[in-house]
Amino acid sequence: MFPKAVILSSGGLDSTTVLAIAKSQGFDLYTISFDYGQRHKQELISAEKVSHAFSVKKHILCKIDLRQFGGSALTDNIAVPKDHLNSNEIPVTYVPARNTVFLSLALAWAETLKAQNIFIGVNALDYSGYPDCRPEYIRAFEILANLATKEGVEGNPFRIHTPLMHLNKAEIIRKGLDLGVDYSLTFSCYDPPNKGDREGNPTANGTACGHCDSCLLRLRGFKSVGVKDPVHYWEHQK
Amino acid sequence: MFPKAVILSSGGLDSTTVLAIAKSQGFDLYTISFDYGQRHKQELISAEKVSHAFSVKKHILCKIDLRQFGGSALTDNIAVPKDHLNSNEIPVTYVPARNTVFLSLALAWAETLKAQNIFIGVNALDYSGYPDCRPEYIRAFEILANLATKEGVEGNPFRIHTPLMHLNKAEIIRKGLDLGVDYSLTFSCYDPPNKGDREGNPTANGTACGHCDSCLLRLRGFKSVGVKDPVHYWEHQK
Repeated sequence: MFPKAVILSSGGLDSTTVLAIAKSQGFDLYTISFDYGQRHKQELISAEKVSHAFSVKKHILCKIDLRQFGGSALTDNIAVPKDHLNSNEIPVTYVPARNTVFLSLALAWAETLKAQNIFIGVNALDYSGYPDCRPEYIRAFEILANLATKEGVEGNPFRIHTPLMHLNKAEIIRKGLDLGVDYSLTFSCYDPPNKGDREGNPTANGTACGHCDSCLLRLRGFKSVGVKDPVHYWEHQK
Repeated sequence: MFPKAVILSSGGLDSTTVLAIAKSQGFDLYTISFDYGQRHKQELISAEKVSHAFSVKKHILCKIDLRQFGGSALTDNIAVPKDHLNSNEIPVTYVPARNTVFLSLALAWAETLKAQNIFIGVNALDYSGYPDCRPEYIRAFEILANLATKEGVEGNPFRIHTPLMHLNKAEIIRKGLDLGVDYSLTFSCYDPPNKGDREGNPTANGTACGHCDSCLLRLRGFKSVGVKDPVHYWEHQK
């Protein structure tokens, strides 16, 4: 029997690379995705496809309505910024306490699974604007997890793995390609031009905008690796 | 304008006393309750009544299905222990990472409200079996909250208030009675004999079992204060 790992999977480039890394380290894979009231659901379709491609033991879709709290361009009617990277401010796409909510739920599942390993694709370089992507935040969550839980208290500590923490986007993509990741399955766009029907159901083929922070970082990463991003973009790929 | 506080409200005796304390300290009150897949919904009815009685600014019911993770007598088909207090083990009513999930969601709301104060009715004496009720756990969450959030990073720290931490049940009840709490509105039972209809809708009048840990602690508390518990019990009150 292999040790179990819970991997937070958004269907995006980063978390899919993390999944490949966890697999390469010999873990049994359990993926968790969050339907948190984000403005489009394409990433959830991608998360499902990715979990299937990695033959995970179980994929859970956890529904939690962060919209009722408000306060983010990713959940509210606040415009997603376009063609504007590298500000030092915390972006409007910041969702209050999102990683804390997600890690808490991953921890709850990990404890019942007796999985002592939790993987999350946070990154301190490309996303330095988000406070809950920093190493000191992750260390604080690990300490909390081991005080919060029966497993932690009884001497089976949890470990939060962040294999992408100090990689830039190009290094992440290179790592994933080395591990055989099919990035055509992934979806990273914050604001796809075709959001699907009124009920929020995505169209079968997700198209990315190519202009939000997430698209810009991704495109820049593929460009510096010298590989074409296999995702469909609304306009011609830059 | 008064400072804002988010209070975790279960509709039970402890969290209602906390609400009265937050009110007495001059906070504007915002209550959050959780529909987390618990086996009965009577406590949510009580939480609604209590929020109404305290004229809170807003009450949010946050739905989150902890049942999909399993592992607790409060969410699964595991028997709730009866007539058995004071074990040193972590009880089967422990829900994996519950307070971490609840505090994370309260933090998300608090950040968007710009409420720097979060109140939770944890107690290290009567519930010493739960790891996520201890002072060291709460301190760790406070540290995490201030690393996790835009507000925390920008110098507006969150504070987690635990006014019941070192009180026993009788002291809690005495405090609440001094502040005018109407405990007939509250409901603490883990396993009410009448759970409501098949859809989990409670009956209008909640009846408590009188035998689970939570009922036993509550009854013992009222007894030592010398006041009759105004809640209905299935059998004659002990």
